[in-house]
Amino acid sequence: MMPNRPDESKSDKKPPLLPVDQALAAILALLPQTNTITKPLDKALGFTLADDLVAVLTLPPQAVSAMDGYAIRAADVTSFPCKLTRIAESAAGHPWTGKIGAGQAVRVFTGAAIPDGADTIVIQEDVDPVAEQDNVEITVRSAEIAGRYIRPAGLDITAGQVILPAGTLLSARAIGLAIAAGLTQASVRLRPRVGVLSTGDELVSPGELPGPGQIISSNASFLANFVTACGAEAVDLGIARDVPGAMLDAVRRASNLDLVVTTGGASVGTHDHIVSDLGSSGQNALHFWKIAMRPGKPLISGNVDGIPLVGLPGNPVSTAVCALVFLRPAIAHMVGGTASLRQFSMPLAVDLDVNDQRQDYIRAQITTKDGVQMIMPAPRQDSSMMSVLAMANALIVRPPFDPAKAAGEFVSVIPLPDLC
Amino acid sequence: MMPNRPDESKSDKKPPLLPVDQALAAILALLPQTNTITKPLDKALGFTLADDLVAVLTLPPQAVSAMDGYAIRAADVTSFPCKLTRIAESAAGHPWTGKIGAGQAVRVFTGAAIPDGADTIVIQEDVDPVAEQDNVEITVRSAEIAGRYIRPAGLDITAGQVILPAGTLLSARAIGLAIAAGLTQASVRLRPRVGVLSTGDELVSPGELPGPGQIISSNASFLANFVTACGAEAVDLGIARDVPGAMLDAVRRASNLDLVVTTGGASVGTHDHIVSDLGSSGQNALHFWKIAMRPGKPLISGNVDGIPLVGLPGNPVSTAVCALVFLRPAIAHMVGGTASLRQFSMPLAVDLDVNDQRQDYIRAQITTKDGVQMIMPAPRQDSSMMSVLAMANALIVRPPFDPAKAAGEFVSVIPLPDLC
Repeated sequence: MMPNRPDESKSDKKPPLLPVDQALAAILALLPQTNTITKPLDKALGFTLADDLVAVLTLPPQAVSAMDGYAIRAADVTSFPCKLTRIAESAAGHPWTGKIGAGQAVRVFTGAAIPDGADTIVIQEDVDPVAEQDNVEITVRSAEIAGRYIRPAGLDITAGQVILPAGTLLSARAIGLAIAAGLTQASVRLRPRVGVLSTGDELVSPGELPGPGQIISSNASFLANFVTACGAEAVDLGIARDVPGAMLDAVRRASNLDLVVTTGGASVGTHDHIVSDLGSSGQNALHFWKIAMRPGKPLISGNVDGIPLVGLPGNPVSTAVCALVFLRPAIAHMVGGTASLRQFSMPLAVDLDVNDQRQDYIRAQITTKDGVQMIMPAPRQDSSMMSVLAMANALIVRPPFDPAKAAGEFVSVIPLPDLC
Repeated sequence: MMPNRPDESKSDKKPPLLPVDQALAAILALLPQTNTITKPLDKALGFTLADDLVAVLTLPPQAVSAMDGYAIRAADVTSFPCKLTRIAESAAGHPWTGKIGAGQAVRVFTGAAIPDGADTIVIQEDVDPVAEQDNVEITVRSAEIAGRYIRPAGLDITAGQVILPAGTLLSARAIGLAIAAGLTQASVRLRPRVGVLSTGDELVSPGELPGPGQIISSNASFLANFVTACGAEAVDLGIARDVPGAMLDAVRRASNLDLVVTTGGASVGTHDHIVSDLGSSGQNALHFWKIAMRPGKPLISGNVDGIPLVGLPGNPVSTAVCALVFLRPAIAHMVGGTASLRQFSMPLAVDLDVNDQRQDYIRAQITTKDGVQMIMPAPRQDSSMMSVLAMANALIVRPPFDPAKAAGEFVSVIPLPDLC
């Protein structure tokens, strides 16, 4: 059934393994940035700024009270208790525009403009008013130092200042800041259109019943959702069979792709045609790497008709770990940002054996034992076990040749993003 | 301009402060769950399972190879090197259905069904074949123990097994698992419709130029995006002015709300009408709390016409921190899940003073100093400073009365969710 093929297994015997960081750097170097578009800020959640965002307004525009209380002159409250006359009220949205004189106080609420002449706020907890109305006597029992509880103009931001640099991922809090600063729109990078292609003769589509030797193509569903969770737009390229040209055909049927991600077809098995397809597409930026990582050794980086391609391994857990390690930063890079897969130091709940030459990404659960947060590796780490990955909330990252670790020793932990 | 009002400041003097955990528990207790809906799994990213998800298929359905290599009988490879005859090939999607006999080997690739009669895989790195074709001699140089590199049927999941329990947030990896298990849809809870109302006479809408004493209503934009980032649907209720009934009117104009979130109007200032509006709506589950936290002391929990309401403070940073601490878990609770704001232990980059009676949420940056990850508090912590919050990537959480801490001592850190 299969034609004779050159013996790849011999030439691939014990090749040098590429460190993860080097592979990632090489992949990112091949990726262009997407075009920019102007978006209303209220539709910009999850987009990345293409340009610095510059404040239009100064905040606060004038000195304002940080507390509910009374605006006074510090010179009037040198001994306690002391009595002042409340002459007016200044509230956020209802500023009082007069000037405060000796022995006078103005009732203020948080955010209210400080009246001319006042230099101090006494908080209402330190004041006994005769009544909550103007032209009554108030008794100040104590006061903080002059200037306390006053927010000077420009404390937060100043008009003309860069408030958010290019490359910032627009979070809710970043959008709140930009809107407060007088902005209504921003220049952001378009979401990359990422074609997702699964490869393999053994795959059937979701909803079909697999026959003998067949499995459902779940990696494509995973990757489409993963790509969406990373802020990109997923384009379903279907399933490419294990025949020459199938990958090229699938990619060429789609339009306007910024990136192609394949899954499967990157082992050294001789059934894999992606590498030869890439070679025949006339591009020369082809890499077929064995990465010093587990799971996920084989990885392809190349481009097809000028579109960058990342080929992930086909075992579901390898696909997912490589997506986190390579695809998530790739998508962030294409919009001019960085994807932080932050690592935290955490004590092991159990012992771990010495590690070999591959960087290990161990599926694990952050857990609490006797009130202390610990990291518990899943007992089985087979790269075909999707159930273990789905229930994991973190990965332990062990560098190559990490010595054996005892329970209680600290290891590096990546909490898995909620939606990835 | 303002009518006389009872003196709230006297009666509110030094009230007991409610611990954060108690306030959160009280809020969650008032929240019903949303209705369920059946969603196709490929549209279900970010939804939460209403029911357990049960596997339709067993995975793998039969024993398969975990590696590229040769399927053999362990009894045939007791000394090395030894010679066998390759009689066939079994690949994922192309199973070989014969039975292997003494001295025979079948070429297998990762995921291929193990032929009848074989009990061991030798990896291709340990084999020298005469050629990559059937009916040739292969030389096995060494082999692992019997059963190695074979994935037994059901290693990952078994038909009928609960693979994802109710309450699971559907991540890309969870969806991948469910699709692999033969499912195409799931029962999930509807996204809560969350009405966002900002209150205050000082507010103008985004795009308007603020006059004297006015500021742009940025909290509503923040909250709408925050709510979206938490997987809910934001409904803009506009700005309620500081007059009796304005909040009620705004809520009653909207339809099918599951939750109302207000911002501002929860200080002890006498301009605040939300509490009295809630009282007049005939509901009795009204709480006006002072929470033992900073920022964000004042908080309202109640309901309006039967719709739960959470009233957040008006300072933007107080709004954001209270949204993380109360609103995010509230939304997760309404879909039957939990929102993990995981805390990590991390050394301080600088000294911190003793804390007072309020739980402190300090805006901070996770940073690296001399190769060690540390947490650096922002130098100013004023609750009006949106710029500090927007550039923060974490909060330090200090319990009430936490003693002074020196640089290098460990504190509890919440990394801020990327989109919140």
